Amino acid sequence: MKRVAYFISDGTGITAEALGHSLLAQFEAISFEQITLPYVNSKEKAQKIVEKINKSGQESGAKPIVFDTIVNAEIRAIIAQADAFKVDIFATFLAPLEQELQVHSSYSVGKSHSGANSSAYKARIDAVNFALDNDDGAKIKHYADADIILVGVSRSGKTPSCLYMALQFGVKAANYPLTEEDLGSGKLPDVLKPYKHKLFGLTIDPERLAAIRNERRANSRYSSLKQCYYETEEVELLYMREQIPHLTTTDLSVEEISTRIMLEANLERRVN
Amino acid sequence: MKRVAYFISDGTGITAEALGHSLLAQFEAISFEQITLPYVNSKEKAQKIVEKINKSGQESGAKPIVFDTIVNAEIRAIIAQADAFKVDIFATFLAPLEQELQVHSSYSVGKSHSGANSSAYKARIDAVNFALDNDDGAKIKHYADADIILVGVSRSGKTPSCLYMALQFGVKAANYPLTEEDLGSGKLPDVLKPYKHKLFGLTIDPERLAAIRNERRANSRYSSLKQCYYETEEVELLYMREQIPHLTTTDLSVEEISTRIMLEANLERRVN
Repeated sequence: MKRVAYFISDGTGITAEALGHSLLAQFEAISFEQITLPYVNSKEKAQKIVEKINKSGQESGAKPIVFDTIVNAEIRAIIAQADAFKVDIFATFLAPLEQELQVHSSYSVGKSHSGANSSAYKARIDAVNFALDNDDGAKIKHYADADIILVGVSRSGKTPSCLYMALQFGVKAANYPLTEEDLGSGKLPDVLKPYKHKLFGLTIDPERLAAIRNERRANSRYSSLKQCYYETEEVELLYMREQIPHLTTTDLSVEEISTRIMLEANLERRVN
Repeated sequence: MKRVAYFISDGTGITAEALGHSLLAQFEAISFEQITLPYVNSKEKAQKIVEKINKSGQESGAKPIVFDTIVNAEIRAIIAQADAFKVDIFATFLAPLEQELQVHSSYSVGKSHSGANSSAYKARIDAVNFALDNDDGAKIKHYADADIILVGVSRSGKTPSCLYMALQFGVKAANYPLTEEDLGSGKLPDVLKPYKHKLFGLTIDPERLAAIRNERRANSRYSSLKQCYYETEEVELLYMREQIPHLTTTDLSVEEISTRIMLEANLERRVN
């Protein structure tokens, strides 16, 4: 069975999408075609979208599901005319919140994001630049400024996690790859020793690691199962010996790795 | 007036947070202390959080606001006991959705994220690596594989936007900085010509640009108002002359820049 789901917003649509994804993921028996429609900020656009929704409903033979976070009441009223099952997020929650808070909401679009003039924007951009400047152990001179330094073998998820933490939380995350030579010595590399309290280790199932490395460098020593078993075993021993907190990334998304690190390392967000 | 707001989840908390931020942003008169509590996945943790919520309510003299996306019914029931104004996202929407879809939801945590074994994970990581490998015009040999190539003057928002598009949408975004020499020639750099259909331009208010550049290299020619006016004027003329679609990033967040580019360049997501 297949249903069409729309995430509609007069802003980026990120909220409607996050909520819609979470809710629809609870219905595994159904396959959803998921369509995000951001910046629906005029009556004309809304009218066209109602037609599109109704058409897809007729074609699929089932009511489309519409998640919307449209703030503008006139535009929302137009979308409400679509022949669809509607999850009107703002209408559902804003009125009770207004009552609880005893103030009227401002009904304005995109307030939750931080534009280029805000301190949150600056914190995020600074953190992204920090992650780029301190990626892959290439530069290490800024480690004193790092909020956290991810360590791990090549392809265990360090770089995307650093970038996600930078963009999402404004956190300055460096990363340092533990190489075969580092692991062979059985000790922490000298450059990391002064920052031991900032280290957080990633590890990964060796078979999964071999699969990932094979996509990069097929049939090499680097991507061999033997090598991947060796490196992950050694790195996990190192974490235990040096008492470095660590996480297995095998079944986790980038969001999950990042939020778990934030939690387990007790990191404070620089943006909210 | 100040209120405490909690975003609570047995997963990453990203959905609860996105929705909570959007809703609370509609109440500008009130200042919220916003606390995200992810991975509340045991009754013991939930009990402790109820105590924490109640305590903060007593201290602030006003009911805390609780947004939760807890899937586990037992844990959710514990959180429901807190003396707070509750926005129970799943309870509100899952029952009506079950009725509409005529199936029971699976009530399982974190289904909407993509673990390391999924094709979505791979697409995102590939896109992140692509963005890193094709950042800042340093390498240009992979432009044939790019979904989009962002151009613009230094510090107009290219790099974070490329990384966000990679992480959020799995889109392969390269970026190329248009330098003073490029702008002086009045023509597109030769390396970009074969990929003109993939170009998307960013520009920014010159005063804002000068402020951003000053944080990087204070009191330099690079960060002078005169230079920033010159570069942004020239780049905008170039976009018009070459008919390159473009966007002013001044008041936009990274999310907004990225989602607008996706929309205006008609880019397809590689992950949903």
